[in-house]
Amino acid sequence: MVATVHQVALSTDLYELTMAASYHALGMRGKAIFSLYVRKLPPRRSFLVVAGITEALRYLEQLHFDDQALDYLRSLPVLPRDFVDSLASFRFTGDIWAVREGTVLFPEEPVLEVEAPILEAQLIETLIINAIHYPSLVATKAARCRLAAPGKVLVDFGLRRTPSFDAGLAAARAAYLAGFASTSNVLAGERYGIPVTGTVAHSFIEAFPSELEAFRAFARTYPGDPVLLIDTYDTLRGAQHAVQVARELRAEGRRVRAVRLDSGDLAELSKQVRRILDEAGFPDIQIFASGGLDEFELAALTAAGAPIDGYGVGSRLGTSEDAPLVDMAYKLVEYDGRPALKLSTGKQTLVGPKQVWRHLGADGRFDQDLIAARDEPSPGPGWQPLLQPVMRAGRLVDLPSVEELRAEHLASMERLPESLRRIDRVEPYPVRLSPVLQARQQAAVAAIRAREGL
Amino acid sequence: MVATVHQVALSTDLYELTMAASYHALGMRGKAIFSLYVRKLPPRRSFLVVAGITEALRYLEQLHFDDQALDYLRSLPVLPRDFVDSLASFRFTGDIWAVREGTVLFPEEPVLEVEAPILEAQLIETLIINAIHYPSLVATKAARCRLAAPGKVLVDFGLRRTPSFDAGLAAARAAYLAGFASTSNVLAGERYGIPVTGTVAHSFIEAFPSELEAFRAFARTYPGDPVLLIDTYDTLRGAQHAVQVARELRAEGRRVRAVRLDSGDLAELSKQVRRILDEAGFPDIQIFASGGLDEFELAALTAAGAPIDGYGVGSRLGTSEDAPLVDMAYKLVEYDGRPALKLSTGKQTLVGPKQVWRHLGADGRFDQDLIAARDEPSPGPGWQPLLQPVMRAGRLVDLPSVEELRAEHLASMERLPESLRRIDRVEPYPVRLSPVLQARQQAAVAAIRAREGL
Repeated sequence: MVATVHQVALSTDLYELTMAASYHALGMRGKAIFSLYVRKLPPRRSFLVVAGITEALRYLEQLHFDDQALDYLRSLPVLPRDFVDSLASFRFTGDIWAVREGTVLFPEEPVLEVEAPILEAQLIETLIINAIHYPSLVATKAARCRLAAPGKVLVDFGLRRTPSFDAGLAAARAAYLAGFASTSNVLAGERYGIPVTGTVAHSFIEAFPSELEAFRAFARTYPGDPVLLIDTYDTLRGAQHAVQVARELRAEGRRVRAVRLDSGDLAELSKQVRRILDEAGFPDIQIFASGGLDEFELAALTAAGAPIDGYGVGSRLGTSEDAPLVDMAYKLVEYDGRPALKLSTGKQTLVGPKQVWRHLGADGRFDQDLIAARDEPSPGPGWQPLLQPVMRAGRLVDLPSVEELRAEHLASMERLPESLRRIDRVEPYPVRLSPVLQARQQAAVAAIRAREGL
Repeated sequence: MVATVHQVALSTDLYELTMAASYHALGMRGKAIFSLYVRKLPPRRSFLVVAGITEALRYLEQLHFDDQALDYLRSLPVLPRDFVDSLASFRFTGDIWAVREGTVLFPEEPVLEVEAPILEAQLIETLIINAIHYPSLVATKAARCRLAAPGKVLVDFGLRRTPSFDAGLAAARAAYLAGFASTSNVLAGERYGIPVTGTVAHSFIEAFPSELEAFRAFARTYPGDPVLLIDTYDTLRGAQHAVQVARELRAEGRRVRAVRLDSGDLAELSKQVRRILDEAGFPDIQIFASGGLDEFELAALTAAGAPIDGYGVGSRLGTSEDAPLVDMAYKLVEYDGRPALKLSTGKQTLVGPKQVWRHLGADGRFDQDLIAARDEPSPGPGWQPLLQPVMRAGRLVDLPSVEELRAEHLASMERLPESLRRIDRVEPYPVRLSPVLQARQQAAVAAIRAREGL
């Protein structure tokens, strides 16, 4: 487990340190600008919902190398002693511009830009990508689940198959930020105030001599209105047992809140279960479903008109199963006032500091973006800038709560154009480069080609 | 970041606690046996390499709820106060049998089995799955990379796009355990003694007025033999610059250790670069390649005869990109002496405590497995049991080092049958159930069906 600050400082790629050692030895203190952006979206994904920025900034504000970290670094022959000694006073002192967490972004658009002495700006590369890459994938998948199951209650069940406890915590936060109602992850409740939910597993049912006895035992000991898991042995028989317990509870003035299905043909079973509950006089018992769900399964259940009130979305959300990786990169775009980029095939970076402008159409939905140099004026009325200063001289400008970010994200999803609401097909969304940025880009490429004799 | 012990205790699904509360209220203290196993492997994967067990056991030995955790739990209306109070003295006191980390396993074979009072055995479910699921996927992918690139040096470059720092640390360990030579992850070096490697990124090259000046600056300041990244602007031109620097270093009695390619057609470029280096009289400069690699890319480069000496495998390893999820489950198999299982479609569990026996054939390679009840005798000569006690009454039996586990894993991969060495196709491997286990399984299913009236 990565437990202490020194361990965050060491959670980096060795080359960040060997490069920093060279900059240190050479006395290179020029200002570097790095951009974090996505080169290309995974198949079937039309947009990225950004998350993880708050955590990245929190790490940055605290980042330093303690004695234990320095001792280890001194043991590495590739790092000169005087460089490691200098790390004792390392702090991140730069400026950062970023979009708000929960913002919908497209390829090439900066998620954030860092301006700092090159040693600092380089040294935080691994941290920045690591903190933002995975939460953004989970937030994006969570937003897609909401598009696939409009109006349904969605719950994060992902923790157990997330890649670590840290990842599970970040995933719970990202899913909540993207509109999920609650999580099964208790730590996410404690840490972020996210509502936590959950009742029983199949093992509970199996630990009793019969399903009916298990239901009764749980109802007797659970302090609220129980949710009963009905698919351990036979889902329809389970629904009948739930009805029986609901009748017994009614006599005490209590009720069964919901039944949960976790296997089988959920569309068909939910209809049959709904009928059993309704015919028994329990139209208020909700149906909750789980088991290998993702946005594609949810869309199929929506299309089938499954009478399901809420879904637990687990492993496929917490691993971003259909797209566990997005080509998110943190690239030098300017050093010491000189534009920087590489010419490697298919990997050109937009030079210099930038701003992303988003246009709202007459229908209140956004309809085009413009990536411009940051020193350009607003393109005109109806355009909003997405990047704003979030850190100045290593200090946080402000830190919105998860609730604020969630509310903003949900409002922005209302402005999502119709063409981007499909989960199975990518529709083009217009993102243009400003003429000024284009001209600078071409000039930078030409200058490098000339310099390198290409 | 999940930073303290109380946070590990809270990194659980709420239902583990609501079930525990019921067991507490009901006074249910019978012994439960849970099995952790994989129901089905992802497409194209013929086996699972287990990892993460050591970390799981370390967590278990320390697991407890501190005051901060208890305070939060008391705030949840679904958990009765006296139950939360009782958690103050919670410790895991059970026994665990497990395979060694690095063991090759197949579906249905237990990774580990837990025997403990049901409250304890249930409460650790999320922890057990979370700690073992992801490292096993990464170890499996790393082992497949070794099969695809025999004899090559493989380096873990995954950290930046792993889902968290914890995940990155676990991935570095899993890859090393599965035979990788080193990692870029500095914390993994500090924590586990894994060799760390790395030199420069494109940004370093771009920060200088020209590639050649960047190479010279790095060579001047790096305390060892540098690896030069040559694809920033033009790979072949970069190779010529590397030759130039190698000549300059030779005059000082130093050398360029390797060049690194990170983009383009690696098979073709590596051949051209090899020719440039050889013709310039530097046959000892190695070629190292990276950039979106996985076992499939490695196999293609091997097939193309690419003269590449080592590979950095990054994002696709650290996310287990082609298979970020495996259906690993932790299931009740016995409670209070009575076999337990659910009958849900396609999800039947093998009842009772078990042992996995592996048979070594005449060629020294394993050729079949037998899953038996744990109380059965050895099937005969040539059969080895894979599960052994690793925890007794909550205490670790022994904790092998990563180096020991790595050596055992590498030896076991020498015994992998030829049919399982393909990375693109799944060949059947015989795993049988013992007649005793089959009979107990059938009896348990019949008993439950009778009890539930099915």
